[in-house]
Amino acid sequence: MSLSDVLTRIDTDLDAALDRLMALLRIPSISTDPAYKADCDRAADWLVADLASLGADVAKHPTPGHPMVMGTIGDGPRHFIFYGHYDVQPVDPLNLWHRDPFDPELQETPKGRVIRGRGAADDKGQLMTFVEACRAWIAVNGSLPCRITFFLEGEEESGSPSLIPFMQAHKAALKADLALICDTGLFDSRVPAITTMLRGLLGEELTITGPDKDLHSGMYGGAAMNPIRVLSRIIASLHDETGRITVPGFYDGVPELSNALRDQWEGLGFDAASFLGDVGLSVPAGEAGRTALEMIWSRPTCEVNGIWGGYTGEGFKTVLPSEAHAKISFRLVGDQDPLAIRESFRAMVRDMLPPDCSVTFKDHGASRAGQFDISDPSFEAARQALSDEWPDAAAYIGCGGSIPIAGHFQKIAGTTPMLIGFGKDDDLIHSPNEKYDLESFHKGIRSWARVLAALS
Amino acid sequence: MSLSDVLTRIDTDLDAALDRLMALLRIPSISTDPAYKADCDRAADWLVADLASLGADVAKHPTPGHPMVMGTIGDGPRHFIFYGHYDVQPVDPLNLWHRDPFDPELQETPKGRVIRGRGAADDKGQLMTFVEACRAWIAVNGSLPCRITFFLEGEEESGSPSLIPFMQAHKAALKADLALICDTGLFDSRVPAITTMLRGLLGEELTITGPDKDLHSGMYGGAAMNPIRVLSRIIASLHDETGRITVPGFYDGVPELSNALRDQWEGLGFDAASFLGDVGLSVPAGEAGRTALEMIWSRPTCEVNGIWGGYTGEGFKTVLPSEAHAKISFRLVGDQDPLAIRESFRAMVRDMLPPDCSVTFKDHGASRAGQFDISDPSFEAARQALSDEWPDAAAYIGCGGSIPIAGHFQKIAGTTPMLIGFGKDDDLIHSPNEKYDLESFHKGIRSWARVLAALS
Repeated sequence: MSLSDVLTRIDTDLDAALDRLMALLRIPSISTDPAYKADCDRAADWLVADLASLGADVAKHPTPGHPMVMGTIGDGPRHFIFYGHYDVQPVDPLNLWHRDPFDPELQETPKGRVIRGRGAADDKGQLMTFVEACRAWIAVNGSLPCRITFFLEGEEESGSPSLIPFMQAHKAALKADLALICDTGLFDSRVPAITTMLRGLLGEELTITGPDKDLHSGMYGGAAMNPIRVLSRIIASLHDETGRITVPGFYDGVPELSNALRDQWEGLGFDAASFLGDVGLSVPAGEAGRTALEMIWSRPTCEVNGIWGGYTGEGFKTVLPSEAHAKISFRLVGDQDPLAIRESFRAMVRDMLPPDCSVTFKDHGASRAGQFDISDPSFEAARQALSDEWPDAAAYIGCGGSIPIAGHFQKIAGTTPMLIGFGKDDDLIHSPNEKYDLESFHKGIRSWARVLAALS
Repeated sequence: MSLSDVLTRIDTDLDAALDRLMALLRIPSISTDPAYKADCDRAADWLVADLASLGADVAKHPTPGHPMVMGTIGDGPRHFIFYGHYDVQPVDPLNLWHRDPFDPELQETPKGRVIRGRGAADDKGQLMTFVEACRAWIAVNGSLPCRITFFLEGEEESGSPSLIPFMQAHKAALKADLALICDTGLFDSRVPAITTMLRGLLGEELTITGPDKDLHSGMYGGAAMNPIRVLSRIIASLHDETGRITVPGFYDGVPELSNALRDQWEGLGFDAASFLGDVGLSVPAGEAGRTALEMIWSRPTCEVNGIWGGYTGEGFKTVLPSEAHAKISFRLVGDQDPLAIRESFRAMVRDMLPPDCSVTFKDHGASRAGQFDISDPSFEAARQALSDEWPDAAAYIGCGGSIPIAGHFQKIAGTTPMLIGFGKDDDLIHSPNEKYDLESFHKGIRSWARVLAALS
């Protein structure tokens, strides 16, 4: 095997790799919206065809939701799973996009060239870094230096309802030396990272109902309970004055940071002022006495992701609405139990209801936090391989987001997850104008080629 | 003049009167939405043509917003203004309507026949009760027993931005013995009413901005301020534990009910349980220690009429939004000063903002409460005329809604307003499936014929 020839091949094939990514980005595979079901299917077909063109034994597996793509290729003593997801987030508010989210293009920006479009970073661009590394390796060497099982999901952005049953049914195929997952970020543009701590996620939607129909606030205002007022009071009570979350038992299982990790994080020189400054903020808004890095990596949160009720159009309407709604998510850490927190949250909401109001809840998924064992020497080998590609040495970091798949690999298949990704903080994932730096894509492909060489 | 012939004529002409109302209801004159500007204009044209057909000297007067219709007809020592409005509320949520809001029909219901459609009660149906009374009077007697100036507005549901300048410019024409206003309700289906107390209205829209773009709650959650949380805390703080409104100075100018009025209201036998029960509620939700009738007639309120922010579609999106919005209205009584309350409310909101958050406000109108002098013997004459038409004697009542025009007649033209209307509590004005009882329409026309006879 010749790593340097593979890296050269990646450089010369970059334009073609970009064309392939653009083709995948043009498919609007929004998994949470039933209107895009056929598009999710089309994205899966595209991946099946692309992996087949590499010589993989690959198939599209139906599920009650969107299909899974699974395929195997290569040989050798070592076997790795590769996980990515082909579905994307919704695109609203559409009016804030500067171009069609599904008409991607390469753009020049003051910070370098970027691939602009929904899914460019999360996760199609990241997924394709691994596929392209394999393609280059096969082109140069005729085969891979190890066995790879591709496992590509289409429901990651909609709570992965089919994931656990599917993994249980395919447990044997998912047992491997490592599960490589590409859905995380760099520490910064110089420092690549292996993510070893992930927050869990609990998603809840609640609807408060007061009067059984919309009323005129002139006729009923004052005498009839307004569900928006009730909902606001509930949301306002979820945090105390110090920013702590008030759901009873919420902090059960939340660990304090070890001194070793605290020291390592302090050594990273994280610049909270510029992290917040990039989005127009200046003051970390979480629990008093915590650093911004703790707030986003190692502390749990409660966020309102959406709220609506009453008249929200132009002008004014003196309606006293029958219903008010909110979508609320909790990011979880350590041993926090999402199901216990769901019950406690729902009980707390019910306790706060005034007479005449009722509540209904909708479950939007629940996953525990993950913390991964890095004692396997593969981790040090991968860290070294990443350090060889990027300006500075790679770091072990935490991540504020939730990647439930990592914990599933551990629990269901007994496979250790290794999270490597090339996203940046300003990629605008889940937001209008999502992008992926061309540098992330290019050096990402090169990084995987190096990691495969180091692990095989 | 022959009142009984006029009443007979009204009865025989009812089907034709209904056809005319249906034609007016088919015009979607939603004044708050610019998309319906041409329809508002069309409704004004329709009224001009209809009043001209009665022999009125009538014209459509342009304004910076929607046109005013003004016309004069009749002769006699007494001169009355008649005010109504031809614009209607928006129709969302459209999916809750059982038929097209602008395809009205007469429906059989367990409680009798109703005219179903947007504007049936508020205010096209009410407006036409007066026009039809005049039509019958003219048909029978050849002319009216008094002089009438019609003054029909097209911006009542959108804050009446053109009203005051227009009234000031036409002050002389609006000086009359009384201003008859048909935009209120019966006390109940047996007891007609003259409304002598009206709440004022202050409308505010606020937008709280936190981060300068939508963020991913995994990446930023915990460290970045969420504007929905800030907005909820502000809304939750607007009422204290006893239901009192906490805006500083809010209760300045709020009078206690006189003993005489309290006694009269107690005598009405208002059934709070059935008033609330009709809309699925059981407990008056306002200030502790007040009756439900006080809450809706004589106490001020603060209501959230709409709230929105973040992701509100199907499924879940872990967005941490940049903005959160609310539409808030205050119903005012006595001498409460809407402009002082606006300033106090805005200062309170600004004081509650955490670092990194900003707020912008949009003004949606401000009107004082009205309390009208009923010492003019015309009031007792009109009350007697109403009592003659309905099963029980007419009452002087309060009204929770705001009808700013009443105060404008007093202040600008020195004309005493007299508010008579035939709406019912279950008319669903401002809501889906608005209706007007055929009985309200028919007996409303007959009532005006009697009132015109009594006043002339």
